Amino acid sequence: MLDNSTLATLQQLCGKENVLTDKADLICYSYDATQRQFLPDVVVHPATVEEISQIMKLANEKAIPVFPRGAGTGFTGGSVPVSGGIVLGLTRFDKILEIDEDNLVATIEPGVVTEEFQKTVEKVGLFYPPDPASLKVSTMGGNVAECAGGPRCVKYGVTKDYILGLEIVTPTGDILRTGGPTMKGVVGYDLTKLICGSEGTLAIITKIIVKLLPKPAAKKTMLVMFSSIDGAAQAVSDIIRGKIIPTTLEFLDARTLECVRNATDLDVPEAAQAVLLIEVDGDPEFLDKQTGRISDIVQPLGVVETRIAETPAESEALWQIRRSVSASLRRVNPKKYNEDICVPRSKVHDMIRKIDQISEKYNIPIVNFGHAGDGNIHVNIMIDDKIPGEEKKAEEAIADVFKGALELGGTMSGEHGVGIMKAPFINLELKDTVVDYMKTIKRALDPNNILNPGKIFPSDK
Amino acid sequence: MLDNSTLATLQQLCGKENVLTDKADLICYSYDATQRQFLPDVVVHPATVEEISQIMKLANEKAIPVFPRGAGTGFTGGSVPVSGGIVLGLTRFDKILEIDEDNLVATIEPGVVTEEFQKTVEKVGLFYPPDPASLKVSTMGGNVAECAGGPRCVKYGVTKDYILGLEIVTPTGDILRTGGPTMKGVVGYDLTKLICGSEGTLAIITKIIVKLLPKPAAKKTMLVMFSSIDGAAQAVSDIIRGKIIPTTLEFLDARTLECVRNATDLDVPEAAQAVLLIEVDGDPEFLDKQTGRISDIVQPLGVVETRIAETPAESEALWQIRRSVSASLRRVNPKKYNEDICVPRSKVHDMIRKIDQISEKYNIPIVNFGHAGDGNIHVNIMIDDKIPGEEKKAEEAIADVFKGALELGGTMSGEHGVGIMKAPFINLELKDTVVDYMKTIKRALDPNNILNPGKIFPSDK
Repeated sequence: MLDNSTLATLQQLCGKENVLTDKADLICYSYDATQRQFLPDVVVHPATVEEISQIMKLANEKAIPVFPRGAGTGFTGGSVPVSGGIVLGLTRFDKILEIDEDNLVATIEPGVVTEEFQKTVEKVGLFYPPDPASLKVSTMGGNVAECAGGPRCVKYGVTKDYILGLEIVTPTGDILRTGGPTMKGVVGYDLTKLICGSEGTLAIITKIIVKLLPKPAAKKTMLVMFSSIDGAAQAVSDIIRGKIIPTTLEFLDARTLECVRNATDLDVPEAAQAVLLIEVDGDPEFLDKQTGRISDIVQPLGVVETRIAETPAESEALWQIRRSVSASLRRVNPKKYNEDICVPRSKVHDMIRKIDQISEKYNIPIVNFGHAGDGNIHVNIMIDDKIPGEEKKAEEAIADVFKGALELGGTMSGEHGVGIMKAPFINLELKDTVVDYMKTIKRALDPNNILNPGKIFPSDK
Repeated sequence: MLDNSTLATLQQLCGKENVLTDKADLICYSYDATQRQFLPDVVVHPATVEEISQIMKLANEKAIPVFPRGAGTGFTGGSVPVSGGIVLGLTRFDKILEIDEDNLVATIEPGVVTEEFQKTVEKVGLFYPPDPASLKVSTMGGNVAECAGGPRCVKYGVTKDYILGLEIVTPTGDILRTGGPTMKGVVGYDLTKLICGSEGTLAIITKIIVKLLPKPAAKKTMLVMFSSIDGAAQAVSDIIRGKIIPTTLEFLDARTLECVRNATDLDVPEAAQAVLLIEVDGDPEFLDKQTGRISDIVQPLGVVETRIAETPAESEALWQIRRSVSASLRRVNPKKYNEDICVPRSKVHDMIRKIDQISEKYNIPIVNFGHAGDGNIHVNIMIDDKIPGEEKKAEEAIADVFKGALELGGTMSGEHGVGIMKAPFINLELKDTVVDYMKTIKRALDPNNILNPGKIFPSDK
């Protein structure tokens, strides 16, 4: 619990109406998409970077943990206040400050919602590619803190690839600028890229300089149904080996398709045991050639049906199958562990086999879909948590999935981060010396362990 | 001077023939492209990562500075042994270990020469875009340490954008792996990107995992001559604003063209006061459309002549003008300070004006060319260093150039780094708090300040 003088100082700094202590309010800020709940002592909504700086100085002085928070859509608990203290909400930082059409650069505040930002830049013919599934709700600050991905990252790269510079508040309360609006810059260490993906443990982001691209002139969507997952996985390898990098190369496995069939009236033939949803973009004349080449590549691999959209409405119809997945899954079992391993692209096939074996071993349904084009598979372990022992079985299955990905040269997380959910497993992937190197950086920059403690690193014994 | 027991240990570790102490040998490793000379005590050429680890442990124990070195082509003194000690040469790490055509990923050692790597991957239809001018000599390890750029970076990004993972030896001698061969990965801090561009101060790079692209099917080169720098600079803005990002968008100013006219027999009409060399790549049918659109955009801006290459030989002929620049410049004055400021793309025009004023103010010829497409201008301050006072004037002019770039929202260095040359100026660009944040990281990871000391940060008073 915070003492009254701390509360009074916070109220003085940010205004009484921006300091929440009612239980009902605290509950709203106690969880993210992981559904793990931890109650903060107070929720503060500062309006300026100076207020944040003062809050961090106060927090250091009084040893109060601070948990920065955007929209709370994360899948690994990156924003949850695991040890009470202050939730620092950034939703009042919601302005798009500048869109510089001469330089294809935007400057925005962290509380801007991702989709709103995308739509705004598209109005002037520009393009911000990263497209996490949460984009209607998630904020750009959270996207940067977690280094969010999405379907279009196959061709365009992840959030980090678009962040040129930041304004931050350090764990000790200094206000810094990193990077800048230029396309290149090598003066000193690349703090921008260090902070991007550091899950709110090294800095509070208060301003973001974003690189934009010209909006592609056109796009074309195709959906290919395969008689087996083997064919679909081979198709991914062959497309990449064929030197084609589509904008999007999403896959859905047999179990995912079964869920979609059961939960929707979308037309998914029984013979389709795997689906690739492929999108290409660029110059309009070029797109037919690309989809033609892709059709030629996949044809020998057991294609049940190929659908190519000729209009935006047809494209939207093809996307419906992919978009219906999350809702359809809920029918399998009430509780879902959503992991996001990433393997080298050619190993998607091997990984799916491993996952099938793990599913059999533990007798738990595991449903796979995701970004096959960059080897990033969303592995959904579905259990009924009312059955005793199921949660423990699920945790063992998750560890096996992680080990399987690592054996194939992969990683435990392509885009969700570590947070609290994967922290207990981090030693499977990173040697102690690597974790120590990272913790050395954290300790040096946050000597009192004030900023988002309990994340990424397993707690010391 | 090193004591005999240290020398004996180094010889035992790496073999007598790989430990050089002859004055003649030491001189060879005492400078880079900056021509600042500092003699090391010993040059060691280890063969394995374990040997490097042992060398670092020994160096920590005995407080001997270690200076990692590739080909020594840097422009800011990043590899020079400013305080004696050990030069650690990495040229024996010269193997391309794997080119994974399924995943478009290569694993290489740091001593591989950049151009050799590019040619090798191109043989199998793949593409490594970054192309620093030194690529025939420079090594990939040096490219990563400095985050090298080049003409193609306008479209394709810099070295950092292609580095997926590293094997490193830390300043204290631990052997770590960062990142990995997957397209995505967010487990822990992004050490890969922190080390890339850290100028050899945070780690010795012993292995590099590189992302590759499919080789573009074709490219097309055009050269546009303008009657004024204003027209050329406006063209850069208008091309980018027209939503075209060419592969290459190089510019040469009037003084550069004058040098080329005087030093070569290349056909550069007197009326041409600025030149843009533009290359586009991609699908062959698409290229004519692109060059056509560019021609339309530049036409109203005072075009003297446009040359479009129809064959590789014609393309090579257009590049000759750009390639002859460095040699042509030598005739102006014997000593050249080569800076590489970077400004927002639309500010190239303003920057060139500022530089002209600085040139007049100090009465020193300043010749500008470089990567206009990303605002990265190579500013060549040409003096006769035999004239007393000229060097001091040049240094003042450089400071003015840096200040000018910073006033326009730019940076002192787009691709060369800070090293020793720009360290005295770093406070012009970075606030003390930012430098402190960086130094905190350096101190935490290299507590004895053993690895490449004296670089980036101005020495403490």
